[in-house]
Amino acid sequence: MTSSLESEHPIKAYGYAARDTSGVLSPLTFSRRATGEKDVRFKVLYCGICHSDSVFAKNEWGITKYPVIPGHEIVGVVTEVGSKVEKFKVGDKVGVGCLVGSCRSCQNCVVDYEQYCPKQIFTYGVPDADGTQTHGGYSDHMVTDEHFVLRWPENLPLDSGAPLLCAGITTYSPLRYFGLDKPGTKVGVVGLGGLGHVAVKMAKAFGAEVTVFSTSVAKKQEAIEGLKADHFINSKDPEQMQAAMGTLDGIIDTVSGNHPIAPLLNALTAHGKLILVGIPEKPIEVAAFSLIMGRKLIAGSNTGGLKETQEMLDFAAKHGITSDIELIPIDYVNTAMERMLKSDVRYRFVIDVANSLKTE
Amino acid sequence: MTSSLESEHPIKAYGYAARDTSGVLSPLTFSRRATGEKDVRFKVLYCGICHSDSVFAKNEWGITKYPVIPGHEIVGVVTEVGSKVEKFKVGDKVGVGCLVGSCRSCQNCVVDYEQYCPKQIFTYGVPDADGTQTHGGYSDHMVTDEHFVLRWPENLPLDSGAPLLCAGITTYSPLRYFGLDKPGTKVGVVGLGGLGHVAVKMAKAFGAEVTVFSTSVAKKQEAIEGLKADHFINSKDPEQMQAAMGTLDGIIDTVSGNHPIAPLLNALTAHGKLILVGIPEKPIEVAAFSLIMGRKLIAGSNTGGLKETQEMLDFAAKHGITSDIELIPIDYVNTAMERMLKSDVRYRFVIDVANSLKTE
Repeated sequence: MTSSLESEHPIKAYGYAARDTSGVLSPLTFSRRATGEKDVRFKVLYCGICHSDSVFAKNEWGITKYPVIPGHEIVGVVTEVGSKVEKFKVGDKVGVGCLVGSCRSCQNCVVDYEQYCPKQIFTYGVPDADGTQTHGGYSDHMVTDEHFVLRWPENLPLDSGAPLLCAGITTYSPLRYFGLDKPGTKVGVVGLGGLGHVAVKMAKAFGAEVTVFSTSVAKKQEAIEGLKADHFINSKDPEQMQAAMGTLDGIIDTVSGNHPIAPLLNALTAHGKLILVGIPEKPIEVAAFSLIMGRKLIAGSNTGGLKETQEMLDFAAKHGITSDIELIPIDYVNTAMERMLKSDVRYRFVIDVANSLKTE
Repeated sequence: MTSSLESEHPIKAYGYAARDTSGVLSPLTFSRRATGEKDVRFKVLYCGICHSDSVFAKNEWGITKYPVIPGHEIVGVVTEVGSKVEKFKVGDKVGVGCLVGSCRSCQNCVVDYEQYCPKQIFTYGVPDADGTQTHGGYSDHMVTDEHFVLRWPENLPLDSGAPLLCAGITTYSPLRYFGLDKPGTKVGVVGLGGLGHVAVKMAKAFGAEVTVFSTSVAKKQEAIEGLKADHFINSKDPEQMQAAMGTLDGIIDTVSGNHPIAPLLNALTAHGKLILVGIPEKPIEVAAFSLIMGRKLIAGSNTGGLKETQEMLDFAAKHGITSDIELIPIDYVNTAMERMLKSDVRYRFVIDVANSLKTE
């Protein structure tokens, strides 16, 4: 299989791949396609480590085909462009997030909601348009249709900005879509990890009054002093939860562990909105009564489209929003993933790809 | 207690009350307040029987104080108005729905969402502003602040229009609030009872393409021929449910029995909305994944405010929308409630109060 991977495309490539359900990553030589007329080829500089990289590496969703090279928070510099590329030139700084393809013609694509296109192509681990498997940013370079490539704003750091391509857009998009982006809006953020800490920064930049819910009291100081959240609630403390009743216009729930939803619904005002962006394993349980009596809603939200992701990057650059990161060499990736699963990172690992990935 | 009820207010009144958890209704002499300066006094002509009348009569929500006179789908004719009443005069046809009071100053009241005011006063069974208990429309007359009284449209039938005051507004309001009121919108209605059959008529009047979901195949003909629904799906048939996948912009779920929610979420398009107006006893179970992957939402909705209820009545009059009813004398009310609980009515019982309630 390795031999086929090395020769299926003309351009040699190199990265770190998971090869089985252990999820352990190790170096892999593979290949990428020649630069098509609409393609942008770029050298990967930085790549964030997202929780779903681990999920996919270990085949926890049951859809992984090995070997797979993860990574969908990718920042790089353009090395080649196809003959019909209009938006980019060699030397431009660029980003690629969770998607590298979609049908471009369905009712979602035509309104820039590529993330809901039934034919969307994830950045790694799925069949690309030509039938070969996509591979992500834990690799030396990428080649991507320009529609799925983001312009990197001038003053946005390349390393600490990389996680915005998933964590940033995943929290920015629901704040916008569900109308929680107005100054004075009272927004809750549940969970203070990779997604949560960016959600706080985004909501603050929109002018919201932000309340952090966490089961870890140790994070109170970080939330208030570090992230400038206005309030911190220990979600294990019934008294604090009771005091929060009916106070919030919306909540972004970033927690992927199983946790009770009813106390969060109680914290909403009438017409309040609870938006799930984390994916707990077990179904959530909701009393219809608690939705009906306040016309409350529970929704989910999945990343964002390309147009909105560009808007988010520009917004982040304007407001000085980045992820808090720990920059690591790529040979630390397995340790980093273990630490990430124990929430032992403030708040996102980013791989210093260009400076640490040595081709054979 | 009966003696106190008869004398606590100056005006003698008469109705049918539940006296214990059997929920059996029997005649009761009580009293109503004198006409205040903003009050409208009216003779009750018709009153619909809502499912929650039975719930309340049997104290199934655990908050009932006996005796209680149910009824919140009330149509009548004005007999007296207070000195400062501006909107009504003697002889006007009027309606009263689920509410007879609210604080009039909270953030919900000031935007005409009285139904979400924390201090709302239900039409029966709760303390009124003066501390006495409210009593509903299974009675000879009502006296109500004019803010909570609806103008009855000229050409809207009094008897078959009465159920619109609960069943009508409960389905009209979410269609409007959640943007399911645009021509061509694909709307599902789950359950074909008192609420569901009106939901179909409302959605059709908005120009929607309507799909009825029911576990009762016998209702297909009624749905298609009687109510002019466009499609009928037997929700017990997995093949029919599979065929509906991804087809609907929104669903109004009127079912108050426990039922699976996942197949309904599957029937929604991306960004689709499932609105609960029935209250199943058990919590509903929802996989976060199924919400996230299509940015779908589940919400609840509770009746409507006074301004919107007036708008709904005018809309119903314009479009010829009424409830399908079985008109009964008030001494049939206990039998009617039993039949209602067995869904043995097409689709709403309405009590012919003025012609059947004989004062002692």
